Amino acid sequence: MTVLAKSAAELRSESVRSLYDQLTVRLKDNHHLQSIANVLYWDQEVMMSRKSAAPRAEQMRVLAGVAYEAKTSPIVGSLLEELERRQETEDLSNILNKYELANIRLSRKAYKTMTLYPKELVQESASLDSKSVGAWTDARKESDFAKFAPFLKRQVEIAREKAGYKIKGGVSEEARRINDKARAAQGLKEDDICYKGYYQALMDTFEPGFKDERLSVLFEDLKRDLVPLIAKIKAKNFQHESAFLEPQWDVEKQKDFCHRISKEIGFDTEAGRLDVSTHPFSMGIDPLDVRMTTRYRTDILQEGIAGTVHETGHSLYEQGRNKDYASLPVSMALSTGVHESQSLLWERMVSLNKPFWNFALPLLKETFDDASHESLQSVDVEKFYKAYNRIEPGFIRVEADEVTYSLHVILRYEIEKALVEGDITVDDIPSLWNQKMKDYLGLDVTEDRVGCLQDTHWAIAIFGYFPTYTLGSIYSVQIFQHAQASIPNLDEHLSKGEFNVLREWLNENVHQQGSLLESGDDLIRDLTGKPLDSSIYVKYLTDKYTKIYDL
Amino acid sequence: MTVLAKSAAELRSESVRSLYDQLTVRLKDNHHLQSIANVLYWDQEVMMSRKSAAPRAEQMRVLAGVAYEAKTSPIVGSLLEELERRQETEDLSNILNKYELANIRLSRKAYKTMTLYPKELVQESASLDSKSVGAWTDARKESDFAKFAPFLKRQVEIAREKAGYKIKGGVSEEARRINDKARAAQGLKEDDICYKGYYQALMDTFEPGFKDERLSVLFEDLKRDLVPLIAKIKAKNFQHESAFLEPQWDVEKQKDFCHRISKEIGFDTEAGRLDVSTHPFSMGIDPLDVRMTTRYRTDILQEGIAGTVHETGHSLYEQGRNKDYASLPVSMALSTGVHESQSLLWERMVSLNKPFWNFALPLLKETFDDASHESLQSVDVEKFYKAYNRIEPGFIRVEADEVTYSLHVILRYEIEKALVEGDITVDDIPSLWNQKMKDYLGLDVTEDRVGCLQDTHWAIAIFGYFPTYTLGSIYSVQIFQHAQASIPNLDEHLSKGEFNVLREWLNENVHQQGSLLESGDDLIRDLTGKPLDSSIYVKYLTDKYTKIYDL
Repeated sequence: MTVLAKSAAELRSESVRSLYDQLTVRLKDNHHLQSIANVLYWDQEVMMSRKSAAPRAEQMRVLAGVAYEAKTSPIVGSLLEELERRQETEDLSNILNKYELANIRLSRKAYKTMTLYPKELVQESASLDSKSVGAWTDARKESDFAKFAPFLKRQVEIAREKAGYKIKGGVSEEARRINDKARAAQGLKEDDICYKGYYQALMDTFEPGFKDERLSVLFEDLKRDLVPLIAKIKAKNFQHESAFLEPQWDVEKQKDFCHRISKEIGFDTEAGRLDVSTHPFSMGIDPLDVRMTTRYRTDILQEGIAGTVHETGHSLYEQGRNKDYASLPVSMALSTGVHESQSLLWERMVSLNKPFWNFALPLLKETFDDASHESLQSVDVEKFYKAYNRIEPGFIRVEADEVTYSLHVILRYEIEKALVEGDITVDDIPSLWNQKMKDYLGLDVTEDRVGCLQDTHWAIAIFGYFPTYTLGSIYSVQIFQHAQASIPNLDEHLSKGEFNVLREWLNENVHQQGSLLESGDDLIRDLTGKPLDSSIYVKYLTDKYTKIYDL
Repeated sequence: MTVLAKSAAELRSESVRSLYDQLTVRLKDNHHLQSIANVLYWDQEVMMSRKSAAPRAEQMRVLAGVAYEAKTSPIVGSLLEELERRQETEDLSNILNKYELANIRLSRKAYKTMTLYPKELVQESASLDSKSVGAWTDARKESDFAKFAPFLKRQVEIAREKAGYKIKGGVSEEARRINDKARAAQGLKEDDICYKGYYQALMDTFEPGFKDERLSVLFEDLKRDLVPLIAKIKAKNFQHESAFLEPQWDVEKQKDFCHRISKEIGFDTEAGRLDVSTHPFSMGIDPLDVRMTTRYRTDILQEGIAGTVHETGHSLYEQGRNKDYASLPVSMALSTGVHESQSLLWERMVSLNKPFWNFALPLLKETFDDASHESLQSVDVEKFYKAYNRIEPGFIRVEADEVTYSLHVILRYEIEKALVEGDITVDDIPSLWNQKMKDYLGLDVTEDRVGCLQDTHWAIAIFGYFPTYTLGSIYSVQIFQHAQASIPNLDEHLSKGEFNVLREWLNENVHQQGSLLESGDDLIRDLTGKPLDSSIYVKYLTDKYTKIYDL
């Protein structure tokens, strides 16, 4: 019953509209296969038992094989080829709208990239992830990097092999050899799917269009500005009353509060879930099935709330995707950095500021009305705001405040870049990590559990992703400041818990745009009229903490 | 990169071992695809949000298409064909062991069956299930059968179409036409995948080898024996003290108790989960990933415990599957009825009897040690046993006691058989259901919610499954009585909570046998030396309840 690819001659006689429609049927099916993988991933992180990792790895391997066949199907290939031929000879913008043209552009890139990889590599990669996460979990528990190292080494090899296919000459003999062969076989043009280095090739998966050279400069600037700012804050003693944040916070009550806040912000609980996992995340299986997790600490109130609001920001993006192009590439998030801008905008620009607490503090007092939280009852928003924004350099990225966070990211960026470029080996990681923690945050790492074993990313071969956290920080400040300028009385709305005003603005200006534009840079320029600018971000931090710390 | 099927000539030159090995690679991959569908099904029942049913239906459709392609792959077909050719000319039992030969037999049947169905039908069926369950859930909530009826009608049509392909002539003009064409196209032999009627064709999926004629006789016998037994019990007033079962049972404490019991019986909590769902079930995704659910009622202690022990029985079967043939057909459960024999054996033969409560009653007292359960503390096992086994005809099958349960099943069997044979329509169901409830159990159904809308089976097109619950009841009594005769001091072991003795015996004699034999009948005969016999089941019930009710 296999449907055969039509011949090139047959396709030539079909209309552009018909070719496009045939393409989207395939693209939607491929998306559903990806959604299935996402359900399995969510399940693995949140529900699955320990021993089930072995069969899950097999399921992932088989599914990756099936998805590979579907994504590299000659039917998709010949439809794309014929559409490309038409684009060269006629102006398709009279026939297809900009969303449809973007679907062709995006699916062409995905097809060309996937066909560069051998199926076996893709399958090994999918199956290794499940096993590697298991090894990482155990290693982290025992703070024993050596237990995780062999898995990470294989992940780095695979990442380098994948990246190798996307580099056009010049990087290394090895890369050139792998690469020229594969590229020739796929009939790629000179500048098609072509990056300058391993890291750039990997990062482009997460932050398309963003250049590594630019990132290096941006990160050097940030380091230059943030390291002294943090030192200045550290030198000041925290002057404000904060004892009311010190009692233990009952987890069940935190859950009630966080579920409430998430719903108030606009998370549709009938089209998703909020659970608990070791590493909080949000997964947009479909706009109608968005699942996120958070985690709670009894000693730190901020952890659960920040985690929930952060993941809610991601989830609003996913739930708010363009339904007219559901399951098609143009409806997907533009980049990981832009995704992060949405989580950070809600987490930092909203939930770390006074208007939000005008609304939320009474709810918090209502939730924690027992004797141990008596001192909370008399706190006003001003006092709460200052105590809540206390800066405390720490070991853990996901617990870091907004000032120190970027240095956690820069540290990881520097290490993973050196790793995938082949300048260091996996065994170099722990000492390098600890040295940088000392240099950037003045901290001595005592065990890898709170050092280089804290994040799951490398375990699942996510290299080139970390920088997008900081790009997201910068995007979020510029987007929020533009929202403030565009929405009359935004602070007042937030103070009343009228979050829909901001949510709808973001939906129109960011979520619904999906992958219509070609990079996060373009989005910021289109939206705010200014290019991406790290100094705006630094100024925001400096202004805010100068006031709180009286710098 | 698609692997092409080898030509018949190429395969002729390969060894039987090589052909078998190539076949098992495919079978394992196909099994993993099925496992993925099972994860999605579990998720849908236990985790997924309401609105996510729409995208899930699409995922199921795509996955079913992929699985269809894999299961009907010409590569599998030509390997099976060549192996069949060899079997005709040489004695393969010198080359392959009995498990391996069973894998060929079972995969041949699965392949031949699947290739009879058109892909579109299989995909529609998979996608309809998710939507139909949603409609059933809503209809049940509102007790509005009409809301569910259109979905059920389509499910019946699909089931009839599927069954039609498996019937060789004689049933109807329509079936003959569909069927002859498909069968000819697949080159099936006269008696290949060939059943006498629609119901038989459907039931064979769940209880292979069991004949519908035999079932009718068995069920008529049971009705004849059980209806008067129930009437006799109803006529007697329950004489024993049972007030200690009446206070409310805290759900969290019940959970603690049930998780403990499940673990004591032998459920490996690192290779599966126990959750709560509306309709309790057990799902063997893999022996290392077995997930079950139960449900708790604060007013009826038996519900949560019986549900947990029942599903644990299923789960032990799944966790105990033959690992030497992991992911291959021979390692799978022999039939749904044999599966049910395992759940019912633990639920009824063990947890409804005195030895179990010698062990469990002290734990129960320990768990419910608050003032409201004071009267429980002084109860002895004899008293507890009698109160716990009180018979109370009710509307709900899954809450039914072991005496009335079979009549719930017979009622469903009679209705679904008439439905798929085309003797009644979907609209006839409610009145027919209510009439039978009156005739068999003397109850007046007041609303469809507790009548024909109570079960999920028909919503997911499971027709021919219900009878296996009662077959399982009969199997379970014969298997347990044989275990009692085979294991020295079994009651003593159970009294001490040494469940491993029974579990290991079942593992060797049932779980590890998988699908080696051809029917549940064969298993019972092989194991106990006697054929399946409903009178043994009736005698067990009569003896037990004569004592409790002093009949």
